[in-house]
Amino acid sequence: MIAIHGFSPSGNCHKLRMLLEPLGQPYDWVEVDSPNGATRTPEFLALNPNGKVPVLQLQDGRTLTESNAILYYLAQGTPFLAEDRWARAQTLSWMNFEQYSHEPYVAVARFIAGWTPLDSPRRAELPRLRERSHQALAVMERHLQSNDWFSAGAYGIADIALFAYTDVAEHGGVALAPYPALRAWLARVRATPGFVPLPEPDALAADRIAQTA
Amino acid sequence: MIAIHGFSPSGNCHKLRMLLEPLGQPYDWVEVDSPNGATRTPEFLALNPNGKVPVLQLQDGRTLTESNAILYYLAQGTPFLAEDRWARAQTLSWMNFEQYSHEPYVAVARFIAGWTPLDSPRRAELPRLRERSHQALAVMERHLQSNDWFSAGAYGIADIALFAYTDVAEHGGVALAPYPALRAWLARVRATPGFVPLPEPDALAADRIAQTA
Repeated sequence: MIAIHGFSPSGNCHKLRMLLEPLGQPYDWVEVDSPNGATRTPEFLALNPNGKVPVLQLQDGRTLTESNAILYYLAQGTPFLAEDRWARAQTLSWMNFEQYSHEPYVAVARFIAGWTPLDSPRRAELPRLRERSHQALAVMERHLQSNDWFSAGAYGIADIALFAYTDVAEHGGVALAPYPALRAWLARVRATPGFVPLPEPDALAADRIAQTA
Repeated sequence: MIAIHGFSPSGNCHKLRMLLEPLGQPYDWVEVDSPNGATRTPEFLALNPNGKVPVLQLQDGRTLTESNAILYYLAQGTPFLAEDRWARAQTLSWMNFEQYSHEPYVAVARFIAGWTPLDSPRRAELPRLRERSHQALAVMERHLQSNDWFSAGAYGIADIALFAYTDVAEHGGVALAPYPALRAWLARVRATPGFVPLPEPDALAADRIAQTA
């Protein structure tokens, strides 16, 4: 059986659940407490020298890193990834957009709000992260005004990649109210068969989020 | 004929030349002066609502954004991208590493050094960007101690993606001396048939780079 090494509250890790659950593909989930140093141990660095979750481990021990590369690998031959070359290119384009222009702002704002102390100096980054988050959401909104999905006409791995952190953007103080097409897309994703929501933040993270201006 | 809309000193744009030149595939290059606002015009935003170069435009007008998605699209069916599913997954993993853990530090340090004024407040970011650059280069060095290439055993698009900014990391004050395996890989890439180097920085950028501590 395949194994996923991941931190459950991480959207990057949750992406893999969002694909594997509707596929009905069995997997072991190995919880890795990444905010508390579990990705910096020699054992973990042997799995991923870059010290990040998620990591896919095949039954024979081979490993694959980077959430979007894992999504692409697991989705081949399934309805979550088109066969057509141009459709795949557009799917990969949105997944690159997610990792470069979206996740470093939307996900990091959420992480700082919920998973750093209330007096962390990193909180000074929040205004800039939120501004850049809104730039990314505006690009998504524009696309969704004339498209239902990001994966070349059907629900697929680019939607999964973009959904994971967009759905919880408000944890980082990034309001979704200005984006009606985006909110309709979030609802469409939630209504897909086999959809699994990201776990709610634990009590400590929820308290920090509530206290973050 | 295909067209590339790009800014020549940009490594992200240069990646496409590094693939198209050895392939001998004809293309038009449309120069876009991105540091001076040319990616924020209505005309350019119609090509890429995210306001970034490079953009691939097909003869029929269709567009594809994100340098690594363009590389993947153009490389299919060529020796620069393996057919094997696992090899492709590893190639995509390194390309995601490049966009998330490498380019935002190595490329941004270079951009600030050469393409912002000497009194830019962004120069305060340089120490952190260099520290994170070295973390990325150390991950590459470790891989290259037991592998010749990043594209699953052969020179290919993951090498192109990683080469573009690594080769000019010293423009941003990121020394390559500590990485012998990486320097040997850079030399191997430069020796590939059809290799094209990134253009030298213009006089203004070169002067700023020389004056950056």
